[in-house]
Amino acid sequence: MAPGATAEKKTEDEQSSKDNLIHLSNPHLEKMKDDILYHFALGTGTHDFPALFGDVKFVCVGGSPSRMKAFITYIAEELGLGSVGADYPNICAGTDRYAMYKVGPVLSVSHGMGIPSIAIMLHELIKLLYHSKCSNVTIIRIGTSGGIGLEPGSVVITSQSVDATFKPQFEQVILGKTVIRSTNLDDQLAKELMQCSKEINEFNTVIGNTMCTLDFYEGQARLDGAICLYAEEEKLQYLKAAYDAGVRNIEMESSVFAAICNLSGVRAAVVCVTLLNRLEGDQISSSHDVLVEYQQRPQKLVGHFIKKCLGKV
Amino acid sequence: MAPGATAEKKTEDEQSSKDNLIHLSNPHLEKMKDDILYHFALGTGTHDFPALFGDVKFVCVGGSPSRMKAFITYIAEELGLGSVGADYPNICAGTDRYAMYKVGPVLSVSHGMGIPSIAIMLHELIKLLYHSKCSNVTIIRIGTSGGIGLEPGSVVITSQSVDATFKPQFEQVILGKTVIRSTNLDDQLAKELMQCSKEINEFNTVIGNTMCTLDFYEGQARLDGAICLYAEEEKLQYLKAAYDAGVRNIEMESSVFAAICNLSGVRAAVVCVTLLNRLEGDQISSSHDVLVEYQQRPQKLVGHFIKKCLGKV
Repeated sequence: MAPGATAEKKTEDEQSSKDNLIHLSNPHLEKMKDDILYHFALGTGTHDFPALFGDVKFVCVGGSPSRMKAFITYIAEELGLGSVGADYPNICAGTDRYAMYKVGPVLSVSHGMGIPSIAIMLHELIKLLYHSKCSNVTIIRIGTSGGIGLEPGSVVITSQSVDATFKPQFEQVILGKTVIRSTNLDDQLAKELMQCSKEINEFNTVIGNTMCTLDFYEGQARLDGAICLYAEEEKLQYLKAAYDAGVRNIEMESSVFAAICNLSGVRAAVVCVTLLNRLEGDQISSSHDVLVEYQQRPQKLVGHFIKKCLGKV
Repeated sequence: MAPGATAEKKTEDEQSSKDNLIHLSNPHLEKMKDDILYHFALGTGTHDFPALFGDVKFVCVGGSPSRMKAFITYIAEELGLGSVGADYPNICAGTDRYAMYKVGPVLSVSHGMGIPSIAIMLHELIKLLYHSKCSNVTIIRIGTSGGIGLEPGSVVITSQSVDATFKPQFEQVILGKTVIRSTNLDDQLAKELMQCSKEINEFNTVIGNTMCTLDFYEGQARLDGAICLYAEEEKLQYLKAAYDAGVRNIEMESSVFAAICNLSGVRAAVVCVTLLNRLEGDQISSSHDVLVEYQQRPQKLVGHFIKKCLGKV
């Protein structure tokens, strides 16, 4: 082997040990000529992924398409990359399953509601980042949730995502067999986000456990669904047990989000605002304006974090 | 008691025994003054439900908002209720969680992807129909799916919705405890729909079991997700075992759809087109036009059924 080749090899190795590349836990993909990301209406055969997405360093995901569009407009202004009244095109305009927006190093993607919906999006997002040869990517879910024992409008940075029995795990059925995956999130990232909230100093923020459920009504012990076969006392017992297990909010995506980011070697965090205190009630009855302001809080917090990472604070 | 009052009472009793009203399995709702259907951006305090929805007899639900808008335009024309170029407003315009359209006795609602997403929609839909005092309602899911051993474009009318271990049941966690619910669907309705397909005679239709999974990639034994830790042979073994258990297609909503409709006393069916044959591959690579035509097949079948019920065929 020529000395030059050895040196080049070494540099590449050094590069990959410094850079945190996307880890794809799927040997089959290497054998595929093209990869169609069906639910994004994007494909490696039709789109130049490295050119379109190669510079992405931050991905923010959230349930609602309009909220994720609002976020890209907000972050563009914060980073000084936007122009007044600019309209950001939906990169996934070929489908209505998800919406995706990009400005500079920030990608903003909607994921719908629930574990299956965010899981489809994350599988295709991880492949998109991999095909684009992205490195050192941080993914943050900015969402809404029900709080437990917190004033509505409080923001929870997830310490551990736990299931409906308060265990920090994600149970999944693969080939008919149950597989348990870790829902660990990045402790250091959670601390950095908490520090950002202190610097903003505009709303109450805590680090706590987040319970991730497969259902919004019975699965979260609500009394106001079409079906409810338990008493109010049983509901409160359950929510208090959750509180005692460190749970400060309940939502429907964090467990599979943590599990997939873990397996893909991506730094990840979950930052959700609480729309109500579930110990006080079940219906989300705050005015539209109040709810809109609450939903901007995770955006502000994560916006500040991104600015800080880019040396713009 | 005056003879007239007795007669009226009797007529009401006869009426309710003849009419199949929505059954609400939740005693708590009676105590609530108003009911906010948060994810529809509708509420009993702000909207006159009986006036808006009292005449609904058919509810068609599907994942994609644009597909459900296309369906309402199609059915309006088929029923002679539409005018050329008419635009149907989204009743849930106050939110981007779901989209809802109505023409005459037909309501068309999107539900996003996956069990949690459709469950939220169904809880609020059942309450909407109940508050609207609707009777004799039929709910049909018109969706897309992966087929097993069927030519792409085939339509499957679900006989039984089974889980990832091929059992006809829906497992749900309520107050931290696992509850098993039946996923029975209406046999008679499935037969009536099959008869409609024969009358149309435009595409292959079968009655078969539908496997409902919580994940699109690993949960459906795909090889093309961001994560895949099994071999192609294991995938095929699993799909063939599903076929042997009577499974003809795989999707992500039918089990909770059947369970909630069962508990609410509503006649329900699932009619999905297959976009590919999973024994042949995993990627949905047909052209956009072909996929659009496939997706119109359940709409045509259910459109014919509704016309027939209304004596318009």
